[in-house]
Amino acid sequence: MQDFYYSVPTKVYFGKGVAGKAGELARQYGTKAMILHYGDGVVEKIGLYDTVVKSLKENGVDFVELKGILPNPRITKIDEGVAICKKEDVKVLIPLGGGSCIDTAKAIASCVHYDGPAWDVVLDSSLAKDNLPVIAIPTLAATGSDMDSDAMVCNEATNDKMSLNIPEQFPVYSLSDPTYTCTVPRRQTAAGTADIMSHIMEVYFSKTPGAFFSDRIMEAMLKTCVKYGTIACCEDPSNYEARANLLWAASWGCNGFFDCGKIGRRWSVHPMEHQLGAYYDETHGIGIAILTPHWMRYILNEDTKDMFATFGINVLGLSAEGDTMYTAKKAIDTLEALFRSWGIPENLRESGIGITDKSKFEIMAEKALGPAGRINGFVPLDKQDVINIYDAAF
Amino acid sequence: MQDFYYSVPTKVYFGKGVAGKAGELARQYGTKAMILHYGDGVVEKIGLYDTVVKSLKENGVDFVELKGILPNPRITKIDEGVAICKKEDVKVLIPLGGGSCIDTAKAIASCVHYDGPAWDVVLDSSLAKDNLPVIAIPTLAATGSDMDSDAMVCNEATNDKMSLNIPEQFPVYSLSDPTYTCTVPRRQTAAGTADIMSHIMEVYFSKTPGAFFSDRIMEAMLKTCVKYGTIACCEDPSNYEARANLLWAASWGCNGFFDCGKIGRRWSVHPMEHQLGAYYDETHGIGIAILTPHWMRYILNEDTKDMFATFGINVLGLSAEGDTMYTAKKAIDTLEALFRSWGIPENLRESGIGITDKSKFEIMAEKALGPAGRINGFVPLDKQDVINIYDAAF
Repeated sequence: MQDFYYSVPTKVYFGKGVAGKAGELARQYGTKAMILHYGDGVVEKIGLYDTVVKSLKENGVDFVELKGILPNPRITKIDEGVAICKKEDVKVLIPLGGGSCIDTAKAIASCVHYDGPAWDVVLDSSLAKDNLPVIAIPTLAATGSDMDSDAMVCNEATNDKMSLNIPEQFPVYSLSDPTYTCTVPRRQTAAGTADIMSHIMEVYFSKTPGAFFSDRIMEAMLKTCVKYGTIACCEDPSNYEARANLLWAASWGCNGFFDCGKIGRRWSVHPMEHQLGAYYDETHGIGIAILTPHWMRYILNEDTKDMFATFGINVLGLSAEGDTMYTAKKAIDTLEALFRSWGIPENLRESGIGITDKSKFEIMAEKALGPAGRINGFVPLDKQDVINIYDAAF
Repeated sequence: MQDFYYSVPTKVYFGKGVAGKAGELARQYGTKAMILHYGDGVVEKIGLYDTVVKSLKENGVDFVELKGILPNPRITKIDEGVAICKKEDVKVLIPLGGGSCIDTAKAIASCVHYDGPAWDVVLDSSLAKDNLPVIAIPTLAATGSDMDSDAMVCNEATNDKMSLNIPEQFPVYSLSDPTYTCTVPRRQTAAGTADIMSHIMEVYFSKTPGAFFSDRIMEAMLKTCVKYGTIACCEDPSNYEARANLLWAASWGCNGFFDCGKIGRRWSVHPMEHQLGAYYDETHGIGIAILTPHWMRYILNEDTKDMFATFGINVLGLSAEGDTMYTAKKAIDTLEALFRSWGIPENLRESGIGITDKSKFEIMAEKALGPAGRINGFVPLDKQDVINIYDAAF
């Protein structure tokens, strides 16, 4: 068990109607808020927008809006938000949406008191100062951005997708109402649930000995995703219990809790998938779900089979009897079949993002390795390994 | 799944040597600290006292001491601590010890700016104001007081044991070094581990439907206690991995995390055991471990058997085949045998606290019911029920 530091200061109101607290909570920070949303009409349709606006007005909080946020948060949108915040003297940010919306708010919160382009802060987070408070209202169970300190940011000009992660970026509040996630379409539900599972599996699959507590916690969360992902994707999409369990699992999926005692963040699938986002604008969770089983098969060997077998037994309910390698392979096949049953495309070609050849796999592999020149995950991967995994998933 | 509010603001440094951060962290709050400990020489013996004192001195923090804290935190000791804090203008409290030591610090922190006896604040927590910060350094895996907002307080004059629980009582930091728990004697290790398990089981056994995530999380924690309780009590007391997993599980055992989505706190065994503490000064975890299986048998019926069977299967590894009532009974027997294997006494008479007859069971039962006049747990209990459970455990 490794030494660690733990801090998750976000306060969470969870349940039906909690978005109505937005005004009262925002009022602590001032009388000017910014509401951030996709601008596609969804937050109006599900009633969230009106609830928040009414709550702000009742508490004497004026607001401006930032709309048009897209998946894979754009640095241009962050610059636009920063400019509005400065001009309007915004005191608190209220994103209504999924990971990209909340991430955009968090990045704006970090950049608003820096005089220069936001990308400078992404490249050097020490430039962030006097972060604005963020009150996150998630509408999708996926990244858990409402309860973590991370913001993914895309630079469209350079095809770079990078993480801006500082403790000051933890939202001060998460207002989590599962009813707003009950109408999320199947594809986004599947993508979101696969993303939660990936956040967990990226940590679960490691060679850290003795982090028993965290390993069992992660299995508890993965079981939640397996059970309720199927209900929400296939059986009863508006099932409150399913949506509530998924939303709460998402909030804990990326905030550092189950990392405690495990070796530091050494993710494998995420850096590979981020290139699909940067080059093809892939929906993050879809790319994750396509790549993960191929990554698992690629790194399965005598040294790693135990963890995959344990995953199969403790999470997927496979029998503990029999050959470990057999169980490990069956676990990977079972996970892949689960994703397929949720409607995840079979491979990259069929995911509808315009991948018709392998021409970009080399540059994507290079970018996935980052400055270290290798992915130091469960099994270290070099450039050819990453290309091979893209090939297998093609 | 019930609606809920979640907030656990405590920051945790976990691992070897973290007590050496005490001075640097305390310095944020001022230059006068109070170190609280039992005064039995243990914190000196394990090197913790010197580490903290050195760290304070290096950071220019002067300190006073409060010694002689006993199990079941005394209101007289809290009054004494408050008086010293006022006189010496103490700015931060640093308890080195188990639950009673940390609870004493938290209660002092709540009472120091109230002009009057501390018991007033216990009876009316709204009197607490401007809490002093607490930096908790736990030396025992048990109550999880280092990461929760609760303080148990005993009034020796009236035999009352009550909870003072306000959000401001969360320690600002927990410095958790498992090495300091490696020398905890078997009896205290068994008592502490049983206490962690009880905190979980008091919540786990309830009729809340749909809190799947929290139920699986609790099973993860209980499995941790079962595995490492046996290693620490019976096989290898100084095993770091065992002590680390138990200490981390303890910190999460009572802070509200796994309560999320479950019905509000409706504990059964704790109010019954608190009377053993108040009347016989029983070690809390020992009383808990003796009473728990008897409570379970008393409330086992057609309506409750499913939860006990699930506990047996998911936590204790019992077979999922066969009759549910049989599995439920076997789960209770297995838990009792586990506690016995750790050295927990068989019954109240043998626990060495001077219970030789049943004369106080009636008044203890009355007090256990509290103002509500009944224990509203998994199965509601009236006075005769509580007496019957004491009788069974006698």
